[in-house]
Amino acid sequence: MKVTLERSALMKALGHVQNVVERRNTIPILSNVLLSAEGDQVNLVATDLDIEMSESTGADVGQPGQITAPAHTLYDIVRKLSDGAQVVLQINSDERLDVDSGRAHFTLPLLPSGDFPKMTAEGFTHEFVMAASDLQRLIDKTRFAISTEETRYYLNGIYIHANAGKLRAVATDGHRLALAETDLPAGAEDLPGVIIPRKAVAEIRRLIDGADGNVAMSVSEAKIRFTTGTAVLTSKLIDGSFPDYERVIPKNNPKELVIDNKVFADAVDRVSTISAEKSRSIKMSLSEDNLELTVNNPESGNANEALAVSYSEDPLEIGFNAKYLLDVTGQIEGRDATFYLDSSASPALVKDSEDPDALFVLMPLRV
Amino acid sequence: MKVTLERSALMKALGHVQNVVERRNTIPILSNVLLSAEGDQVNLVATDLDIEMSESTGADVGQPGQITAPAHTLYDIVRKLSDGAQVVLQINSDERLDVDSGRAHFTLPLLPSGDFPKMTAEGFTHEFVMAASDLQRLIDKTRFAISTEETRYYLNGIYIHANAGKLRAVATDGHRLALAETDLPAGAEDLPGVIIPRKAVAEIRRLIDGADGNVAMSVSEAKIRFTTGTAVLTSKLIDGSFPDYERVIPKNNPKELVIDNKVFADAVDRVSTISAEKSRSIKMSLSEDNLELTVNNPESGNANEALAVSYSEDPLEIGFNAKYLLDVTGQIEGRDATFYLDSSASPALVKDSEDPDALFVLMPLRV
Repeated sequence: MKVTLERSALMKALGHVQNVVERRNTIPILSNVLLSAEGDQVNLVATDLDIEMSESTGADVGQPGQITAPAHTLYDIVRKLSDGAQVVLQINSDERLDVDSGRAHFTLPLLPSGDFPKMTAEGFTHEFVMAASDLQRLIDKTRFAISTEETRYYLNGIYIHANAGKLRAVATDGHRLALAETDLPAGAEDLPGVIIPRKAVAEIRRLIDGADGNVAMSVSEAKIRFTTGTAVLTSKLIDGSFPDYERVIPKNNPKELVIDNKVFADAVDRVSTISAEKSRSIKMSLSEDNLELTVNNPESGNANEALAVSYSEDPLEIGFNAKYLLDVTGQIEGRDATFYLDSSASPALVKDSEDPDALFVLMPLRV
Repeated sequence: MKVTLERSALMKALGHVQNVVERRNTIPILSNVLLSAEGDQVNLVATDLDIEMSESTGADVGQPGQITAPAHTLYDIVRKLSDGAQVVLQINSDERLDVDSGRAHFTLPLLPSGDFPKMTAEGFTHEFVMAASDLQRLIDKTRFAISTEETRYYLNGIYIHANAGKLRAVATDGHRLALAETDLPAGAEDLPGVIIPRKAVAEIRRLIDGADGNVAMSVSEAKIRFTTGTAVLTSKLIDGSFPDYERVIPKNNPKELVIDNKVFADAVDRVSTISAEKSRSIKMSLSEDNLELTVNNPESGNANEALAVSYSEDPLEIGFNAKYLLDVTGQIEGRDATFYLDSSASPALVKDSEDPDALFVLMPLRV
């Protein structure tokens, strides 16, 4: 194999794929990136056996071929080369990889490309295309609620499925739930529910960060594939049943509270300074057009702050985890957030004045 | 005690003093800041028993008095208040501290101000004033060489003393040494050698970061005090003898190598990508106007890069720790760095083309 290419093109492609490579690997070849040179392209692939990231970039291929080289080392080298430099990658007579750029020369150990684990991905039953910005929105509005409890593995991802003409994303950890929808893309009709694992969510989110174009998605029973530009991310799905989340979403909470989202978030942040690091519990006391936030912590003191709000129901006291409140306010785009409440023991439904296609549920804490 | 003051003034003062407070304290009162209100000022003091930081700020003192309150909690609260807000601090009838700003109200536990450990600081034998920028330069050019080995406690700081009409700062960890000088301020004549501990170096550096004005320094046998603006930092000195560093500085290294500092630093950074994380050893091979940098690592490969340099002595091979080379190049301001070398086993002297008042010594590694 011999290829010559621009340092910036190689860095971009390596930057995308090397993220998938774990820092510690018991299987040595998983530390490597597979480079395949053919025609006028070089293709790069990295995998952790659950996720495979592939990217192609234009190159002057002097001799076609395949090699696998240490992904992080190669990336670090390329990152440190001067901007605008040309990079030559070729196998030398010792069966090692020569990396040459200007007067800098590196030799890296290789592992047989035949041993590189390729992820099979067949039998995609649903294929559809959506705007990268729509996928980004679905992810951002829900990922904070993904559970980190490994025993509840079926909550360790975002659940997506087709629902009443919408593509719906849901995440929950049992303490809060986030749901966002977008118009159903053609081809996603009857999409069954699939759970995209946390790491794949993070990787695809990184890939499309601020991107304009589209993302093509292919879904099978066991895998999901995202294609955007020259990058292809394939991930195993979580093999489990997502719980029946619909019954958690309050349908008839009668008490409506409308608050300025920014004013509310700032006050919650201030008052929670006093809260214990573990529980972070904050009490909301509602009366006619008034909300008082209170934290009582025997060790570190007390805090309270009153806010003018729109509320005309019976007085109510209800407690929440301050961090969970801030996670939700962080995803509200409109000026106002609307809380739909029932009793101190009932979950709250939170909606965004600007985004009818997102909702959040918060379980109350005893305060 | 009752004081009213601007949130920004309180935040600035608290920001300075709270840094000294350790996150975990076995002595509870060391988590607190001492606030003393008198006249039209409030004074804040924090200590870890080795360093004491004090700062004053203008305030409307409704009732003079002294209290101690949790430093980090109070700082977090003040930080989260809106810009431009007024803050009222007062003792309430429960002997706790009320913090009020707008509609936000906090109550914090207090500890008796009489129990707050005040650092005695008397018998200063030398007092002098220098530009903050000069002190900053002395610190920046030497602090990277401070030892982190706790057993060699006498190397855990910067050694300053008067030397031949200059104020000299030196730090070394036995592997490298850094020395910087500035004109001797009036009053610092005959300043004996004192060792300023690492944490005090960090605190004073933070205090004067980018500052214009002056710093007044007072030195006794056991303590040093820095006064700048309204802030006063008092620190114990390290009670030990700094080694006779002069004999480590090569006096007659005959081989002169002049290199473009930026080009050299970039190449060292690139080539060291391959080096083992522990030793980080890099070989410099010198011949007529040529420098080749080489790293050989059985596990991760080889790297080399050649640079055009100015060198007209016999060929020489010498090894260094790449990180230590980069620490030194990072403190060189001029375009060129000059290395004075002798043999593969002798320490190198490095000088800055723009700064005759700084020098660096690097011990060689066997390569």
